[in-house]
Amino acid sequence: MTYEEVLKAARECIGDKCFACPVCNGKACGNKLPGPGAKGIGDAAVRNYEAWKKVYLNMDTIYENKPIDTSITLFGKQFDYPFFAGPVGAIQLHYSDKYNDITYNDVLVSACSEHGIAAFTGDGVNPQVMEGATKAIKAAGGLGIPTIKPWNKETIEEKMQLVSKSDAFAVAMDIDAAGLPFLKNLTPPAGSKTVEELKEIINFTETPFIVKGIMSVKGALKAKEAGADAIVVSNHGGRVLDGCAATADVLEEIVAAVGDSMKIFVDGGIRTGGDIFKALALGADGIIIARPFVSAVFGGGAEGVAGYINKIGEELRDTMAMCGATSISEITRDMVRR
Amino acid sequence: MTYEEVLKAARECIGDKCFACPVCNGKACGNKLPGPGAKGIGDAAVRNYEAWKKVYLNMDTIYENKPIDTSITLFGKQFDYPFFAGPVGAIQLHYSDKYNDITYNDVLVSACSEHGIAAFTGDGVNPQVMEGATKAIKAAGGLGIPTIKPWNKETIEEKMQLVSKSDAFAVAMDIDAAGLPFLKNLTPPAGSKTVEELKEIINFTETPFIVKGIMSVKGALKAKEAGADAIVVSNHGGRVLDGCAATADVLEEIVAAVGDSMKIFVDGGIRTGGDIFKALALGADGIIIARPFVSAVFGGGAEGVAGYINKIGEELRDTMAMCGATSISEITRDMVRR
Amino acid sequence: MTYEEVLKAARECIGDKCFACPVCNGKACGNKLPGPGAKGIGDAAVRNYEAWKKVYLNMDTIYENKPIDTSITLFGKQFDYPFFAGPVGAIQLHYSDKYNDITYNDVLVSACSEHGIAAFTGDGVNPQVMEGATKAIKAAGGLGIPTIKPWNKETIEEKMQLVSKSDAFAVAMDIDAAGLPFLKNLTPPAGSKTVEELKEIINFTETPFIVKGIMSVKGALKAKEAGADAIVVSNHGGRVLDGCAATADVLEEIVAAVGDSMKIFVDGGIRTGGDIFKALALGADGIIIARPFVSAVFGGGAEGVAGYINKIGEELRDTMAMCGATSISEITRDMVRR
Amino acid sequence: MTYEEVLKAARECIGDKCFACPVCNGKACGNKLPGPGAKGIGDAAVRNYEAWKKVYLNMDTIYENKPIDTSITLFGKQFDYPFFAGPVGAIQLHYSDKYNDITYNDVLVSACSEHGIAAFTGDGVNPQVMEGATKAIKAAGGLGIPTIKPWNKETIEEKMQLVSKSDAFAVAMDIDAAGLPFLKNLTPPAGSKTVEELKEIINFTETPFIVKGIMSVKGALKAKEAGADAIVVSNHGGRVLDGCAATADVLEEIVAAVGDSMKIFVDGGIRTGGDIFKALALGADGIIIARPFVSAVFGGGAEGVAGYINKIGEELRDTMAMCGATSISEITRDMVRR
Repeated sequence: MTYEEVLKAARECIGDKCFACPVCNGKACGNKLPGPGAKGIGDAAVRNYEAWKKVYLNMDTIYENKPIDTSITLFGKQFDYPFFAGPVGAIQLHYSDKYNDITYNDVLVSACSEHGIAAFTGDGVNPQVMEGATKAIKAAGGLGIPTIKPWNKETIEEKMQLVSKSDAFAVAMDIDAAGLPFLKNLTPPAGSKTVEELKEIINFTETPFIVKGIMSVKGALKAKEAGADAIVVSNHGGRVLDGCAATADVLEEIVAAVGDSMKIFVDGGIRTGGDIFKALALGADGIIIARPFVSAVFGGGAEGVAGYINKIGEELRDTMAMCGATSISEITRDMVRR
Repeated sequence: MTYEEVLKAARECIGDKCFACPVCNGKACGNKLPGPGAKGIGDAAVRNYEAWKKVYLNMDTIYENKPIDTSITLFGKQFDYPFFAGPVGAIQLHYSDKYNDITYNDVLVSACSEHGIAAFTGDGVNPQVMEGATKAIKAAGGLGIPTIKPWNKETIEEKMQLVSKSDAFAVAMDIDAAGLPFLKNLTPPAGSKTVEELKEIINFTETPFIVKGIMSVKGALKAKEAGADAIVVSNHGGRVLDGCAATADVLEEIVAAVGDSMKIFVDGGIRTGGDIFKALALGADGIIIARPFVSAVFGGGAEGVAGYINKIGEELRDTMAMCGATSISEITRDMVRR
Repeated sequence: MTYEEVLKAARECIGDKCFACPVCNGKACGNKLPGPGAKGIGDAAVRNYEAWKKVYLNMDTIYENKPIDTSITLFGKQFDYPFFAGPVGAIQLHYSDKYNDITYNDVLVSACSEHGIAAFTGDGVNPQVMEGATKAIKAAGGLGIPTIKPWNKETIEEKMQLVSKSDAFAVAMDIDAAGLPFLKNLTPPAGSKTVEELKEIINFTETPFIVKGIMSVKGALKAKEAGADAIVVSNHGGRVLDGCAATADVLEEIVAAVGDSMKIFVDGGIRTGGDIFKALALGADGIIIARPFVSAVFGGGAEGVAGYINKIGEELRDTMAMCGATSISEITRDMVRR
Repeated sequence: MTYEEVLKAARECIGDKCFACPVCNGKACGNKLPGPGAKGIGDAAVRNYEAWKKVYLNMDTIYENKPIDTSITLFGKQFDYPFFAGPVGAIQLHYSDKYNDITYNDVLVSACSEHGIAAFTGDGVNPQVMEGATKAIKAAGGLGIPTIKPWNKETIEEKMQLVSKSDAFAVAMDIDAAGLPFLKNLTPPAGSKTVEELKEIINFTETPFIVKGIMSVKGALKAKEAGADAIVVSNHGGRVLDGCAATADVLEEIVAAVGDSMKIFVDGGIRTGGDIFKALALGADGIIIARPFVSAVFGGGAEGVAGYINKIGEELRDTMAMCGATSISEITRDMVRR
């Protein structure tokens, strides 16, 4: 199944809010929420996508011709690629009834772990979502990252116990989720956390802890102070705050400020192996891609996921070959220009 | 009544020069005057709108989760929000006969004061306009700001007496109004004022005095020298000078030069709570919004005004929550980037 | 006759290469030559127009309210406005047979001189063009500027004698005319001049001498060395060189380098009184406008010319009033921003 | 035959992947490969084209009027112009069966050599391509540049022997060709080379050696270290790496770093004599143009090639005349601006 075929199949069953576009750039879905669109006037997702296009690659093919190694080690686990599938929640609300949060995570987590990467899973007000997600991760030998919303302390502790049992190699909290329009005023309540509150949660957690939703040096320093093992430079795909900057435009300054002390992931509009290479060259340790994996699951199930992983993996390998990097650690800042 | 419903209703009765667009950005009305369009080639209103879109928000949700307080105190009065409804004149000329200047101000002033903000009222060659406006403000307990055009001294003094009787908590003069095409060559004459002339008027006035229509540091320093209590960084929505800069692009340098000595308002293309937040972060003390309130009055009367206030108030609250500011005074320059 | 009416009438008779557009910005005519289009890919005229739009006006209405004086003195003559009608040649080739070079100049020179400004006249291979132009200027009391192409020395001397008899208050040479596609390989030959050749011509000429077609500091310094009394920062409306810069983008550095030693004119896409103000604020002493005067003559004859002069004169007066300049000499660099 | 006529004729026979567009800017062919399109999202060719449009010419016609000399000397040979026809391979795959690699090179090499320039020839997995190309160059008195792909050592040595016999005045290797999608996984294998491997190849070669496909200072320094006589600043027309920079945007820094030690060619979106002038002013010694020569051959054979050479040669001459350069060596950096 080519990715074009997967997209075509997805268009038949992904609902009327996502168009499984040839290029997933946030333009067709615009500001439609529910659906995959962005918040407010809806251009933050578009800005995310376009910011990567303004980073240019420095081609250089004078180097030793040897196999390209795209693998990385993260929190003691080795992966074939430096990219991960992003967390998605409320699947039926935003897409269609073909999948629900539980069946979606089942397919995604197992397919990712079988093809050398790992998936983040989403969270929901329904406790069964996290139960299903952690079961799927457990079944995949812990190769998955449960993502917990910034609930109140009691709810977080309950969910963390599920995480512990799953042997998940890492856990994340999307601290920006409070801005999701459909999550407001729900029970249990979700909201911002102080450094102290985060520190308490992180201390309570034995698994490496990833704070997702950092968009400034100030925020990164607070995550560091709270003891995070990693952060995700992310604006939630433009879905939590109208008018926010593109992730590609803030990544570099955050790397400069805290890149030595924590692992840094980035997401937002990353769609190709070339984009992945650019993010790595700007200092990211890991890349998260969300929406294209939704199309992959809806359009091709496990096979669709494998196809997309292979597609962008091959693009990454090709980009590395054309820029003279034969391993991920050889990708350096001077291989891109702005 | 949602704001979409208000706009839909407005389209039925607002005349053929305004289109009550989903996004009020100056594009559809272009350079059509009379009507809400801008002067000359008509792109100054568009530029105003777009300049705010080029200011980006720095999301940060690591902070104490507590209620968001959007209130401000201005000239001894407390308001629920830092925004105000702007002055509009010649309602029948620019919109339709559904309202005239007097009935429009009646609805707007009372609805604003009942929902925690205040409205500026416009002026006209017909003395009844100012008489009606000041009566409406008096009825609202002084919670309104009469705006006087830069007439000759005698006319200003007459109008100031009406202002005094109204208990208005502040008064404004739109010193840039001389550039309005339809105000030229009218009786009484309107025109520019020297610092000395302004000083004389301000000294004569007991009410806090706002000079509206400042677009440079030089102009701001002159207003300060004349004793103004506040200025409005404004180009009159692009209606008085073709080719002028966007207000968002001059605000910051004016704040840097005189922000400690006077209150600084800003208007021009501000449409959402996110825009309001950006203006505050760039140093404004108060925000003025004009055209959307016209649509609100035409489309929904007092209910329409209340709906729009709630809409952008909620957006402001949401933006503050996503950027880590729980009160207006906590909104700082580092919460936005350009 | 309004300018809209003039344009409408022009569309009936101006030929099929000019569209007498509401906004004369080089887009509709594109790269069509013959016709008013630009050379090569045809975007130099568009660039000229758009460059003025990127210069913004600093509104300031705190100043003494007194009549606006738009007059200037140039080479001992006083004019009502700082703008001039530009030279146009080969009228029938580029427009239509309604006018030829002689009848066009007759209308333009007299109408301009009667309404307080002066016209430049064009040149041609046909000697009658310059004979007619200088007669028209003579009839206008010398209030016109004959423009001679950079012919060989003998031809220039013959034409200069006609200029002398005309009492023209100044004379110009468009040294860039050699790049005109339809002027190549004609008799007499036209081409570049050395500083020494220009110096000889200027020494030979008693009338103030204007070198038209300067686009760099280097070129301006050469014109100065040759003894020019003035230069015109001009790229011939984009008609002589594809890919050249916009005049608004080179004006300021040329003014900085030679502005004290010569008068500096500028042309290229200047269409409104606001554009004129911007050029003056950037340091120009005089402004030249060409194409809109063609539409004015074709659409309204002398009346059309008067109407256009009044239109942009009024716009200039209005812009001065809104920026706090009551005379041309009060227009300063700080009244615009980029 | 005008170039418009050549294009029209080409549209009849050039296949369904190239549209022989009036302006060859990479937009119509987009990312379609096979075909003349670019790789990935397909905007690298567009970017190449547009980057030259953002370099502006500094017109200056004050200089001695004398004949314009466009000739250059390169590796001991004199050419009428500083531009060359670029190498194209797999003609039938990308265009149509009207020509194959051998017949295409036959027409192109002879037509170029007869009209004062030289052509680069392409390479292929089929050994007959290089045999045919070198025969054509031999027949043209060595006035052609065979381009060898970065094969394994044995294959290169075989091909170099053909080059030697052809008396080619120079030879090139497109070291970036490994990124061509349709060249991957072929036999013989192609891939990157180390500096040492390149040095060995260059030492083995008596003919001046050109390394094609340099896009950074780092790459240029490696080519220099390997002993290259010249480099081509090239991204293979956007066909080997999605997301790479425009050649016009990297040329100048490469010239600054190594321009004294090697000849520097540049290609990518250069279409007119004005573009050629810009590249020379930015420091290039030679310019390579590829796709328009394909249209020329398909649309007009030898006559089409001659017509295109004359067209852009005349444009170059005209641009030089308008910028005050009467020989190629007089073209300097101050004749353009960015």
